[in-house]
Amino acid sequence: MESLREEFLQLIGRLHNDICRRLELADGKAQFTADEWERPAGGGGKTRIIRSGAVFQNGGVNTSAVWGELPAGMMKYLNTSHSSFYACGLSLVMHPRNPFVPTSHANIRYFELYDKANNLTDQWFGGGADLTPYYLFGDDVVHFHQTMKNACDLYGSELYERFKRACDNYFYNPHRQEARGVGGIFFDRLRTGENCDARHWLRFVESVGYAFPDAYIPIVNKRKAMPYTANHIHWQEVRRGRYVEFNLLHDKGTMFGLNTNGRTESILMSLPATVRWEYDYQPVHGSEEEKLIKVLKSPRDWL
Amino acid sequence: MESLREEFLQLIGRLHNDICRRLELADGKAQFTADEWERPAGGGGKTRIIRSGAVFQNGGVNTSAVWGELPAGMMKYLNTSHSSFYACGLSLVMHPRNPFVPTSHANIRYFELYDKANNLTDQWFGGGADLTPYYLFGDDVVHFHQTMKNACDLYGSELYERFKRACDNYFYNPHRQEARGVGGIFFDRLRTGENCDARHWLRFVESVGYAFPDAYIPIVNKRKAMPYTANHIHWQEVRRGRYVEFNLLHDKGTMFGLNTNGRTESILMSLPATVRWEYDYQPVHGSEEEKLIKVLKSPRDWL
Repeated sequence: MESLREEFLQLIGRLHNDICRRLELADGKAQFTADEWERPAGGGGKTRIIRSGAVFQNGGVNTSAVWGELPAGMMKYLNTSHSSFYACGLSLVMHPRNPFVPTSHANIRYFELYDKANNLTDQWFGGGADLTPYYLFGDDVVHFHQTMKNACDLYGSELYERFKRACDNYFYNPHRQEARGVGGIFFDRLRTGENCDARHWLRFVESVGYAFPDAYIPIVNKRKAMPYTANHIHWQEVRRGRYVEFNLLHDKGTMFGLNTNGRTESILMSLPATVRWEYDYQPVHGSEEEKLIKVLKSPRDWL
Repeated sequence: MESLREEFLQLIGRLHNDICRRLELADGKAQFTADEWERPAGGGGKTRIIRSGAVFQNGGVNTSAVWGELPAGMMKYLNTSHSSFYACGLSLVMHPRNPFVPTSHANIRYFELYDKANNLTDQWFGGGADLTPYYLFGDDVVHFHQTMKNACDLYGSELYERFKRACDNYFYNPHRQEARGVGGIFFDRLRTGENCDARHWLRFVESVGYAFPDAYIPIVNKRKAMPYTANHIHWQEVRRGRYVEFNLLHDKGTMFGLNTNGRTESILMSLPATVRWEYDYQPVHGSEEEKLIKVLKSPRDWL
């Protein structure tokens, strides 16, 4: 019987191909280019980048498997005295050109901790998928959440509710008092153990991984040909600024990657291509832009 | 005799007016607009913003005086068991439109810590001024450093050397292994105490504050009419991305402001208006862009 780690690595390899192929079909013009990289302190990854597409201005789908000593700061952060780690996962962010097509992010990951005698002492799965629209289409948000709920339900009827709230809590910019987007699901420290079949959470993250293109791509196809103006782009770029703020100020994945000497270009491929900051920018009262902000300030139950 | 605090507040008030007036003259078109704000937990500030100028795309010159309880995270960060603080200062960032005009930042600040019985137990000055060019003109960098050295020399012949190195160390993006810019001076925890006349460092930060326009504005005037192309702007926007990365990932002032519930719009006025990220962007071999990177990777002694 294969190790959990090996089985997960095979899963993310298959997903990498499947998701990239389906995103390329949705784009219709650009193709992913691949970079393989090694991490000097242990491990490496495969970064696939799409740029200047018909639909996607930029985006990336990465897999990586890295290991080594835990830096002191990360031991403190993880509240552990473990001395080394193994982490692998798939992570993607897509930034569409058309402001009516939302940005989306998804990630599944597997983590192991080892003690000083190199015994495996803790292991867990984590991940999630969330949607960041620039304009609010209720149907799109419901479709995204429903697809994620379907992916969760087989593994526990309470999971969607729990992971939906965790997502609203996690993708939050406290300094703006608003959510990054309209959420989805987020989960971490899903431990395999005595009370849980070792493959239960593996099957679950597989379900989430394959649900992502079903959740996102129909929205892309529905909105990608909608006409837009320079004003819509302006708003999209202002909102992308908030995306950058979240990723650089608050995102734990970015922090973990940079603090463990991860590959900077693969970590920061999550940032949008063109971004704008304007002092004290306020949307017009009663506008579509203001409608989005209202939802970001008080997250809704979509289902 | 006035308190140190009161004297410093008067200094930053005068500097606020003087620096804004001189920057407006350099711009020739735009004027600063003022926002006064209050911090619910104690204090407030005056934010002056310039936008869509002939020379400055965006920029801000802020003064603030804030006080209150130290959040637990900040006590840990400052490595202190003090329970409350008082902080005031002037902080500015200017982002020019023309890629041959450098971005510049300056700051002077005064900080007090109080124990639980509300006795003043520690107080210090901090600050600095640094230059972030997009294209390297050696003469400009030398002028900036020389002006800062002149401002330092009267207060100690060793100060410039010490604060120049501190600046190179502080304004550094470890995840890019490069400096944010070509440096200047940076200093913190300059304590007034038994061995030091109480007004020594106050006079010093006054000297630095008044030196800033002398250091920066002649460079602005020298370069602001230079013709540039879309390629120069592209490079400027990529480099501005590194500026955003430093400010959001590493800058202690940004972290302190956001963690003490400072006014977000006044803190993030430091970010440039239009910014670009491109995966694994590399300047052309032998180009002017590459020359800049080489200097950022190994900081020079300019004087």
